[in-house]
Amino acid sequence: MKPLDGVRVLDASHVVSGPVCCWLLAALGAEVIRIEPPGGDHTWRTKPVVGPDGEHRDVPGPRDIAISPLRRGRGKRSVVLDLKREEGRDLFVRLLATCDVLVENAVPGAMERLGLDYDSLAPAHPRLVYCSITGYGDDGPYRDRPSMDLVVQAVSGLMAKTGFPDGPPTKVGATIGDQVPALFAALGVVAALRQRDREGRGQRVDVAMLDSLLTLLWDEPIDDFAAQGLPERIGNGDPRGAPLDVFTTRDGYAALVLTQDAQWSQLCDIMGRPELRTRYPDYRARLADREAVNAAVAAWCREQTTDAAVEKLLALGIPAGPVRSPYDAPQDPHVLHRGSLQRLRHPDRSEPTDFLGPALPIRLSRADGDTSPAEPLGASTDAVLQDLLGLEAQEIARLRKTGALG
Amino acid sequence: MKPLDGVRVLDASHVVSGPVCCWLLAALGAEVIRIEPPGGDHTWRTKPVVGPDGEHRDVPGPRDIAISPLRRGRGKRSVVLDLKREEGRDLFVRLLATCDVLVENAVPGAMERLGLDYDSLAPAHPRLVYCSITGYGDDGPYRDRPSMDLVVQAVSGLMAKTGFPDGPPTKVGATIGDQVPALFAALGVVAALRQRDREGRGQRVDVAMLDSLLTLLWDEPIDDFAAQGLPERIGNGDPRGAPLDVFTTRDGYAALVLTQDAQWSQLCDIMGRPELRTRYPDYRARLADREAVNAAVAAWCREQTTDAAVEKLLALGIPAGPVRSPYDAPQDPHVLHRGSLQRLRHPDRSEPTDFLGPALPIRLSRADGDTSPAEPLGASTDAVLQDLLGLEAQEIARLRKTGALG
Repeated sequence: MKPLDGVRVLDASHVVSGPVCCWLLAALGAEVIRIEPPGGDHTWRTKPVVGPDGEHRDVPGPRDIAISPLRRGRGKRSVVLDLKREEGRDLFVRLLATCDVLVENAVPGAMERLGLDYDSLAPAHPRLVYCSITGYGDDGPYRDRPSMDLVVQAVSGLMAKTGFPDGPPTKVGATIGDQVPALFAALGVVAALRQRDREGRGQRVDVAMLDSLLTLLWDEPIDDFAAQGLPERIGNGDPRGAPLDVFTTRDGYAALVLTQDAQWSQLCDIMGRPELRTRYPDYRARLADREAVNAAVAAWCREQTTDAAVEKLLALGIPAGPVRSPYDAPQDPHVLHRGSLQRLRHPDRSEPTDFLGPALPIRLSRADGDTSPAEPLGASTDAVLQDLLGLEAQEIARLRKTGALG
Repeated sequence: MKPLDGVRVLDASHVVSGPVCCWLLAALGAEVIRIEPPGGDHTWRTKPVVGPDGEHRDVPGPRDIAISPLRRGRGKRSVVLDLKREEGRDLFVRLLATCDVLVENAVPGAMERLGLDYDSLAPAHPRLVYCSITGYGDDGPYRDRPSMDLVVQAVSGLMAKTGFPDGPPTKVGATIGDQVPALFAALGVVAALRQRDREGRGQRVDVAMLDSLLTLLWDEPIDDFAAQGLPERIGNGDPRGAPLDVFTTRDGYAALVLTQDAQWSQLCDIMGRPELRTRYPDYRARLADREAVNAAVAAWCREQTTDAAVEKLLALGIPAGPVRSPYDAPQDPHVLHRGSLQRLRHPDRSEPTDFLGPALPIRLSRADGDTSPAEPLGASTDAVLQDLLGLEAQEIARLRKTGALG
């Protein structure tokens, strides 16, 4: 049993935000049908690809799947329809009539031009939850601007807030401009389904990449920071805590956030600096001399390995951890225990591949977390048209000749 | 009408992740009762505070609310209970019996010590959705470690993946180690409520900060990057696109992501470099000489103002935008049009304050997006005990004397 059992989603999205949103819905139990144009989006053409006989970097065959679709396509059936052809659009609308949710992240105006925007579809599909993810949302002066992760990180102010005061604005090392909107979209879809359960009607879910990143940023009092004249970006420390920073160790870096006076007192002992306990007895005293407090901890950390420093800090109950390489997680005992990363599977292979993707990071005690593997592009075109629309093989062959089917 | 009408949430959380999760649930229509210890968490003691007569930085009075609770407390009632006292725990459990959801983000083990963990409560409350947000989740070797945003950014590898190859690991300039788990938790809660609507039973929702950030990071093929020997962090560009970077302009920076060959061709004209169109006719050719392609665009950008460069790029349909200060958003015409930032309200004042908080970034066409303002600490203690538990004023006065109530 899963939370979204019985929900069918048409995933008419491409690249990152829409496909990630629909992967989350699939992992929560929805039946997801991914609609793609002939050839698929560009993620199908990245290398390596995984096929029935293993991975390679050659021209992909019909059963080969690149890593991104292997990851974001988990739990989805793949159908190829050409929405630029009238027969393709017709099949799309007939499929939509059997679905509860549509997710799209087309460039602004594209769904209107196809006649597949919310206002065109809603009258005939009043129960439909129609979710759009766009750069700037469905109204406002920037509505028609194309966007991308890098662009919305820049426009939102997140890039200018990340980095060091004497360095340049810095991109976040994960595609959060796509993935955070994907998460808000999934939340909006599930919430709208609940509202529909109560009142019987679907609605439009409009998620903007810009709004999503502003929501993250403005959970801090940005306007008060501006009024205080604080620099836009402050590196790894925080003027609101001491010690609170990332410190260089003998072999790397350790992050620590000390909040309790009793822990500071014990840390002074461990550092062999008992005089600091009386000099900075509480949070206010430490904050008033923040640079000296951080410098004392920095001097101590420089003499330790990262592991030794973190172990001593954790033994005092201080939130601390090593700055680890992004490449370390697959070997981490905790990540392995939790199964936080999953070996991706190919449907033609009994053994999982060696490529990893994230497990759904929502652990539900009464729901199974597993999904079916991704499918090769268009692998379910015929089956879905047969199962959901009752099309005969002959009719499917005819439609394929028109170019409407992949 | 709102999606979560009729859902009652007990928000027994503190600081960032739990309160943000419950703000999202409140903005989606849930009735949220925030339970706090006497004095509240430390966010109540940050300055400035807003009171009936305006903002100030003095000692807070009983109706004063600091900016963080003013923002994260939107849509919530505030009740003060001391869970360290038996009478406080007893009231908590009686309130819980009237609720659908509990959200907590206590340090590992704290809810067990209070007898308020999932296993203790579930037998008597089989319909309860119990959501925990912790650093490392409910099992595994790091289960008992305390964590914080900075620490999980470090441990997940996100910090080592953010920044420039010749610079240090870099903290993301928003508290995504707290807020992304808050989002997954909200999604898990709403999904679990839907499952309960179907099968009648609640469940545990276990969200780890570490899993949440790994999910963001591992939407890229990190293992393939490792196999290729790519550096951990790559600055603002991306080896998978050209031109794709943040470029210095005459007065700032502009971000651009070019994906279409036709746009490249037009850009070469605009840059006065028609020879580059034939030298790099397609994506593969540009990627093979990525540094030269980026250098050509960099030279052009250096001669433009940011606004002029972005305007010309957008006119070609190229996703582009200015790198803006985090302080710019409140004046942005698009942000103003969308109402992406809201003036926070104090319940004792008819006019909103000048402090801003994010609006819910999920725009629902059939749901009202407004919430009530946050309340002063403990403002609804008596009313909630009267309304939900039917306590008489005399009994409330007796309990207050024990110290169980704030």
